[in-house]
Amino acid sequence: MTAFPHPASDAPLFRQEKDLLGYLDVPAGAYYGVQTQRALDNFQLTGVPLYHFPKLILGLAMVKKAAALANAELGHLPAAKKDAIVLACDRIIAGEFHDHFVVDMIQGGAGTSTNMNANEVIANIALEHLGHAKGAYGQLHPNNDVNLSQSTNDAYPTAIRVGLQLSHAELVDSLAALRDAFGAKAGEFKDIIKMGRTQLQDAVPMTLGQEFGAFATTLGEDIERIEGLYDLLREVNLGGTAIGTGINADPRYGKLATAHLSDICGHPMRLAKDLIEATSDMGAFVLFSGMTKRLAVKLSKICNDLRLLSSGPRTGFGEINLPAQQPGSSIMPGKVNPVIPEAVNQVAYQVIGNDLAITLAAEAGQLQLNVMEPLIAYKILESMRLLRRAMDMLRERCVVGISANVERCEALVNQSIGLITALNPHIGYDNATRIAKEALVTGKGVLELVREEGLLDEALLAEILKPANMVRPRM
Amino acid sequence: MTAFPHPASDAPLFRQEKDLLGYLDVPAGAYYGVQTQRALDNFQLTGVPLYHFPKLILGLAMVKKAAALANAELGHLPAAKKDAIVLACDRIIAGEFHDHFVVDMIQGGAGTSTNMNANEVIANIALEHLGHAKGAYGQLHPNNDVNLSQSTNDAYPTAIRVGLQLSHAELVDSLAALRDAFGAKAGEFKDIIKMGRTQLQDAVPMTLGQEFGAFATTLGEDIERIEGLYDLLREVNLGGTAIGTGINADPRYGKLATAHLSDICGHPMRLAKDLIEATSDMGAFVLFSGMTKRLAVKLSKICNDLRLLSSGPRTGFGEINLPAQQPGSSIMPGKVNPVIPEAVNQVAYQVIGNDLAITLAAEAGQLQLNVMEPLIAYKILESMRLLRRAMDMLRERCVVGISANVERCEALVNQSIGLITALNPHIGYDNATRIAKEALVTGKGVLELVREEGLLDEALLAEILKPANMVRPRM
Amino acid sequence: MTAFPHPASDAPLFRQEKDLLGYLDVPAGAYYGVQTQRALDNFQLTGVPLYHFPKLILGLAMVKKAAALANAELGHLPAAKKDAIVLACDRIIAGEFHDHFVVDMIQGGAGTSTNMNANEVIANIALEHLGHAKGAYGQLHPNNDVNLSQSTNDAYPTAIRVGLQLSHAELVDSLAALRDAFGAKAGEFKDIIKMGRTQLQDAVPMTLGQEFGAFATTLGEDIERIEGLYDLLREVNLGGTAIGTGINADPRYGKLATAHLSDICGHPMRLAKDLIEATSDMGAFVLFSGMTKRLAVKLSKICNDLRLLSSGPRTGFGEINLPAQQPGSSIMPGKVNPVIPEAVNQVAYQVIGNDLAITLAAEAGQLQLNVMEPLIAYKILESMRLLRRAMDMLRERCVVGISANVERCEALVNQSIGLITALNPHIGYDNATRIAKEALVTGKGVLELVREEGLLDEALLAEILKPANMVRPRM
Amino acid sequence: MTAFPHPASDAPLFRQEKDLLGYLDVPAGAYYGVQTQRALDNFQLTGVPLYHFPKLILGLAMVKKAAALANAELGHLPAAKKDAIVLACDRIIAGEFHDHFVVDMIQGGAGTSTNMNANEVIANIALEHLGHAKGAYGQLHPNNDVNLSQSTNDAYPTAIRVGLQLSHAELVDSLAALRDAFGAKAGEFKDIIKMGRTQLQDAVPMTLGQEFGAFATTLGEDIERIEGLYDLLREVNLGGTAIGTGINADPRYGKLATAHLSDICGHPMRLAKDLIEATSDMGAFVLFSGMTKRLAVKLSKICNDLRLLSSGPRTGFGEINLPAQQPGSSIMPGKVNPVIPEAVNQVAYQVIGNDLAITLAAEAGQLQLNVMEPLIAYKILESMRLLRRAMDMLRERCVVGISANVERCEALVNQSIGLITALNPHIGYDNATRIAKEALVTGKGVLELVREEGLLDEALLAEILKPANMVRPRM
Repeated sequence: MTAFPHPASDAPLFRQEKDLLGYLDVPAGAYYGVQTQRALDNFQLTGVPLYHFPKLILGLAMVKKAAALANAELGHLPAAKKDAIVLACDRIIAGEFHDHFVVDMIQGGAGTSTNMNANEVIANIALEHLGHAKGAYGQLHPNNDVNLSQSTNDAYPTAIRVGLQLSHAELVDSLAALRDAFGAKAGEFKDIIKMGRTQLQDAVPMTLGQEFGAFATTLGEDIERIEGLYDLLREVNLGGTAIGTGINADPRYGKLATAHLSDICGHPMRLAKDLIEATSDMGAFVLFSGMTKRLAVKLSKICNDLRLLSSGPRTGFGEINLPAQQPGSSIMPGKVNPVIPEAVNQVAYQVIGNDLAITLAAEAGQLQLNVMEPLIAYKILESMRLLRRAMDMLRERCVVGISANVERCEALVNQSIGLITALNPHIGYDNATRIAKEALVTGKGVLELVREEGLLDEALLAEILKPANMVRPRM
Repeated sequence: MTAFPHPASDAPLFRQEKDLLGYLDVPAGAYYGVQTQRALDNFQLTGVPLYHFPKLILGLAMVKKAAALANAELGHLPAAKKDAIVLACDRIIAGEFHDHFVVDMIQGGAGTSTNMNANEVIANIALEHLGHAKGAYGQLHPNNDVNLSQSTNDAYPTAIRVGLQLSHAELVDSLAALRDAFGAKAGEFKDIIKMGRTQLQDAVPMTLGQEFGAFATTLGEDIERIEGLYDLLREVNLGGTAIGTGINADPRYGKLATAHLSDICGHPMRLAKDLIEATSDMGAFVLFSGMTKRLAVKLSKICNDLRLLSSGPRTGFGEINLPAQQPGSSIMPGKVNPVIPEAVNQVAYQVIGNDLAITLAAEAGQLQLNVMEPLIAYKILESMRLLRRAMDMLRERCVVGISANVERCEALVNQSIGLITALNPHIGYDNATRIAKEALVTGKGVLELVREEGLLDEALLAEILKPANMVRPRM
Repeated sequence: MTAFPHPASDAPLFRQEKDLLGYLDVPAGAYYGVQTQRALDNFQLTGVPLYHFPKLILGLAMVKKAAALANAELGHLPAAKKDAIVLACDRIIAGEFHDHFVVDMIQGGAGTSTNMNANEVIANIALEHLGHAKGAYGQLHPNNDVNLSQSTNDAYPTAIRVGLQLSHAELVDSLAALRDAFGAKAGEFKDIIKMGRTQLQDAVPMTLGQEFGAFATTLGEDIERIEGLYDLLREVNLGGTAIGTGINADPRYGKLATAHLSDICGHPMRLAKDLIEATSDMGAFVLFSGMTKRLAVKLSKICNDLRLLSSGPRTGFGEINLPAQQPGSSIMPGKVNPVIPEAVNQVAYQVIGNDLAITLAAEAGQLQLNVMEPLIAYKILESMRLLRRAMDMLRERCVVGISANVERCEALVNQSIGLITALNPHIGYDNATRIAKEALVTGKGVLELVREEGLLDEALLAEILKPANMVRPRM
Repeated sequence: MTAFPHPASDAPLFRQEKDLLGYLDVPAGAYYGVQTQRALDNFQLTGVPLYHFPKLILGLAMVKKAAALANAELGHLPAAKKDAIVLACDRIIAGEFHDHFVVDMIQGGAGTSTNMNANEVIANIALEHLGHAKGAYGQLHPNNDVNLSQSTNDAYPTAIRVGLQLSHAELVDSLAALRDAFGAKAGEFKDIIKMGRTQLQDAVPMTLGQEFGAFATTLGEDIERIEGLYDLLREVNLGGTAIGTGINADPRYGKLATAHLSDICGHPMRLAKDLIEATSDMGAFVLFSGMTKRLAVKLSKICNDLRLLSSGPRTGFGEINLPAQQPGSSIMPGKVNPVIPEAVNQVAYQVIGNDLAITLAAEAGQLQLNVMEPLIAYKILESMRLLRRAMDMLRERCVVGISANVERCEALVNQSIGLITALNPHIGYDNATRIAKEALVTGKGVLELVREEGLLDEALLAEILKPANMVRPRM
């Protein structure tokens, strides 16, 4: 993954670096430095390092590049250093060196370890580019140069927001594709009449196309909602430094760096008006996470429906067939289960659990910073990835292959008591109720009973019961 | 509700009382005093006053009575005052004066307002008994006498625990009655053969009695679990006073008061070994709340099953009928819905939401006290009441009236492909899989296909397919 | 509350009404009828009847009025009936008869009981207006006339949405007033220099005004967000009837009734494009509930900060004083606690718990309807009421009375090691780190050490340490 | 990791296997087979394969071994096959072949893919041992032999329970070690007097040893609770097969297999009395997860306290110092943050989120099985691992290195108004309240004021204020 050669076999295994707490060994080949090494040692919790979320790493590199450009433009960073930093960032943006972003996604320090991991990797790439050894920070320093005009408290939340922007298109593409797959099925099933059900009880007829069309509609709505909420995530706090007061930063820096950042990431990032508020507030994440929860709830409801509608094959609803993806039982021959929707349900539950973890982390912020932001970033990124993968799986391995049991659907309509509702305007509510009860008791069909009593002539009955007439309003 | 006369019509409407913050008007007829009045003014949030939870009020009165007895015994409280306080407590325990416990269940102050509400009401009842006017605290003081040797921080959590003990029998009775109702149905349905389903797909036969028996079993297990967890709630921190160090309390007080309390409430309360830990720790509530959540999850699962099994009447599973409790639709004649289980589901969701609120409150405790304890008490008491009422409703208005559609159950078994599993040991897994597939494609019955192929003779087939042989292990 | 006379003392106590399930006694004075009575008997769960939420009742009456107007206009409802129904609705909208909306907020039946409670009360008011006895439904029928062209499944969710619209102004007013109260304090405190803290560790200076200004900013943002989400709640499904197909409804009805409804409620309601989706989808509620959660999280964070900043009086941060609202302890003389923010925290936890209950209910929707909608309505309405009351309480009883300990704030800045950050650009990071460590070890002040070493002349030092220079960016 | 040689470089890359759905390529070197391959293709969600949880794999192997032994003993499995299966299981138990357990932890099918992954890997190891090629299932079959007498629905939940038993000792060891570390600090700090705080306000004195002792006590209690709940997880449903009826299983099998399993895993597993209930019930997991939540809440509360007590260094409480683990800021020289407790807080939030996901999964179980069990297993195992690692980190990198600021602690006591509480019994509540108020207004010390007024002689004052007298009850 990295372009630089590994050290020769007789080279030292470690180099020494120093920070506030003293000296520490760092692997000689590592582009990260002493502060990353301390975080590696401190936090061995999830087994999920930063590089599992490449978009977050891109976000970090983009922020550092934007900062270098702004600093150089304002005269705070020499051109040679700027060039070396920009080159290092560009290589990371191109996908190199990601395996040197090694800190655990759960970490104390409000993201300082993540920010320093980025500062150190960029510094060392830049140093090698300038002809220096890794760790020669006297030439180009992770804090003084790469982190210039920044604090973790502005650079890190900005990088998370950029990382989320970069995942927008992917998420929306998966969502749109799933919506379209349901839409295509809605077209395919548009003439299949079936019983609608409310409260798991037979209600009135509808088409299977209408049912699948509602799945498409409800997912389509979320594309708009997500777009709106992505916009909230475009507000950043660059230039706020430690607590949003902007101490030690050039007053022109925030706007300039934000403008560069917009160019680099391709999304219109904007500077918050109240940098102090923006430094501690997690509101945008809470609401965005609420949106991932909404999508999870919708997907779970849809999958619950797919499982109900395909229940059977002989003793359930049996209106649709999901494509078989794997044998369902080691003991029951021929059993095939709705494994794909089941997996989507579980993803939805995890996303809902993640939303709670994010809520707890947001509430725990104190005073001028939210120290739990690493968990927020981790869980939002994880939820989005899970949702995207689950939607792709659902589309490819289930929705596109769904077929209808047309005869079963029709038979259920014809034997249903719910048909009586359509006769209501013609025979009156009292007659209708009486016949419904009789059908229930005797097991007879409601049409049979209507005919026995001669309540309606056949022509009118035929007209009323035309599918096209039952599944939409008519005068 | 109260035995004391209301003031004459020309009596003043208010009396004045004083506290740290100065003077304040209190309604002349109120047995509560100035501190309760301040809390009334401060907290107008839920509309749910303390008296909505009578067992909590009993708990408060019992703690105050136990304290008075212990204080008198240790020589810290004169007999006359003790007698008056005990009499006041006994009247409250007998159900009087509850409408004077008026503070909002959500309140700041870690329960101080609730504790002072109790102290004031008891003091004023006692004062009248001693021939003094309400508010004549020079004679008998809410803090100095009623609250003697106590702090809110030990008296209040102890009262909550006592209140929960008092609700134990009720909760268990409702749970046991529901278990028994399912058990009775299990007996009634013991010979009805039906298809079992896994993953909403047809599995293998079972009896409806086995299905209802499992409901009884799973609820029965919770009686034991609840008993075990109630025991955790018997640990109290009397004598710890402000922060558990016992400052200003007689070292003999804690044990003595706890012994009196056990006698009074009829449950074996015991003194915590580490009073400092016991004063801030909410662990027993968190775990008990987790148990209410477990019960809620079980009830919700059972109700989901009842709704599935009774889905129909014509287009669903249709294996059982729930008793009709109310018309189901203003537009669909004859529709009857499973309204009782639906309501239980919603109660379960609220209980799960309450468990989260309790978790958040428990986590927010800081240092020597958990200041969010009022919310914890409120939500636990509410969850228990909701569960009890929901279980009674489910039993009375649903379970006892459930009937089976015997023929439907049998027909589904006979047409099921799942029967093939029972033939598996006799015809082999490969044959079984082949026939299952053929049945699915052709719509034929598996027995029909087995007979067509002559794979088993009729005698053996009859033996295998005996319900008694299919629904339990056999060699 | 009602204008109609109560029955004479020798009048019968009950009248009989009939429905699908047979005859039932209804209290003679009740404006509700048989179906409400059944629901009253069935659901005794929360102790919270519909009339605890007046805006929901207004929403119901407005929907019924809009329906009557549309039905009359389309020729389906005679003018006399229409007039009587409209009059009944208007009286309810004016606040009469609310105590006849008696069903428990938690109910099975997907809101049918609530809808029928409205239909029955309106029918009986209208009947009396027309000179008939209550219960004379042959003259004007709850279902056939009041519920004409409707189903619970469109009328009920629409009424909830209208009820929420009606509470919009109130919620926003409380929020804006709280924001303004913080804003006023921000102005009052704008020149008070204090230490900012990150991760509970001393960071760099800021003004107390900036800190309170951030509270104002963060609440102000929520006004905009809430406005946007209220718009989602303006989409209704009138005319969809049972499952959104519009069976038995005039195709012109949905748009017409929606237009009337907009006029009546004063908010621009609009008809959903996909009525089938709109009938089962709870997405707007889930996201709106997520917004109440976001507001709860923000309020909780603010209250956590207020409690931290006012911790003391002698052993805490002690930077601000909250106004005393009640004595804090029965055992510790002079203790005053931050009871108001503590109560707000607990409200926030309940709102977060409610959000979970709503999520669970939304996910449990099956097929063409979400049967758990009553819980969703209940918990959203409750959360909004709690938030509004909590914000009013926080403003009136806490924020407006907050005072600053100016000298304490300044003293903490002067003794802080964090001052060194401001010197960083002048003495270099290495010197700064060395001095910070020395200060920590020796207990000396950083300025003292800087002066001892003669690192900066006094004029520059004075310039750097001007508050105005430390609390904003400068070149 | 595996002992068998990899295929030669010119060997075919794949072998073909067949199942109900047809033929599929499986990597030639893979010990898993066709059904695992399908699951690998179907579920690409979390990136977390089974082998991330080695104890679950041990659990699977132990169940399969117990089954083989029982089957052989009952005459259903030839000795040669039994021996080969047992050998394969033993190698897995010894830690080999874990990298062949590759299915995603989130999967549809209620664990069938996990069970088949185990069946296939064991079969192929056994086949090679018997001299056959991988995939030669005619000789020894994953379903017919390895899965004999089992269904996923009994083998899989049993394996999860065994896996949890195996992690018991580890979890308890970490917990006990953390408790002991706090206990050691309690001893070290036993004579350091400090102010206790309630509601973040100064309360009464205590020792720092008492404060840390309470942390030890509260964690110690959880060791007992966890032990009790582990016992619930010892109940298994072996022999229940598909739905708990035991179809196709020898009636003696369940008890025998359970006995073997107890021997193999070293924990006293026991057979459930109602296998039908046991097959679908998730109650034990829900309650156990509630226990992990309780532990998370306690750890989070403790870490909140550690962060508060160490807040500063100059503008916070500053009573204790946490050991520095890494530099705290890229912009603020000398800043060191409480990164270790911060990380523990985040772990706690994730565990609480996991508990919610588990709750949702448990509630979603339908009829004879809980299809969401894979998520339950995943999240419980993850929570336990996170808790264990977090506790080890907290102990090693924080607790053992905590030091006290003795002088600061004492100074805060001496300047505190809370001292007045100790004087209460001697000067009376009224005098005490008056002096407390005066101290607050004037800034004077309470002892200074008491002396000024001559309220107590110095000898008595000295006696009262002896630390030993203030931090425990006394007469």
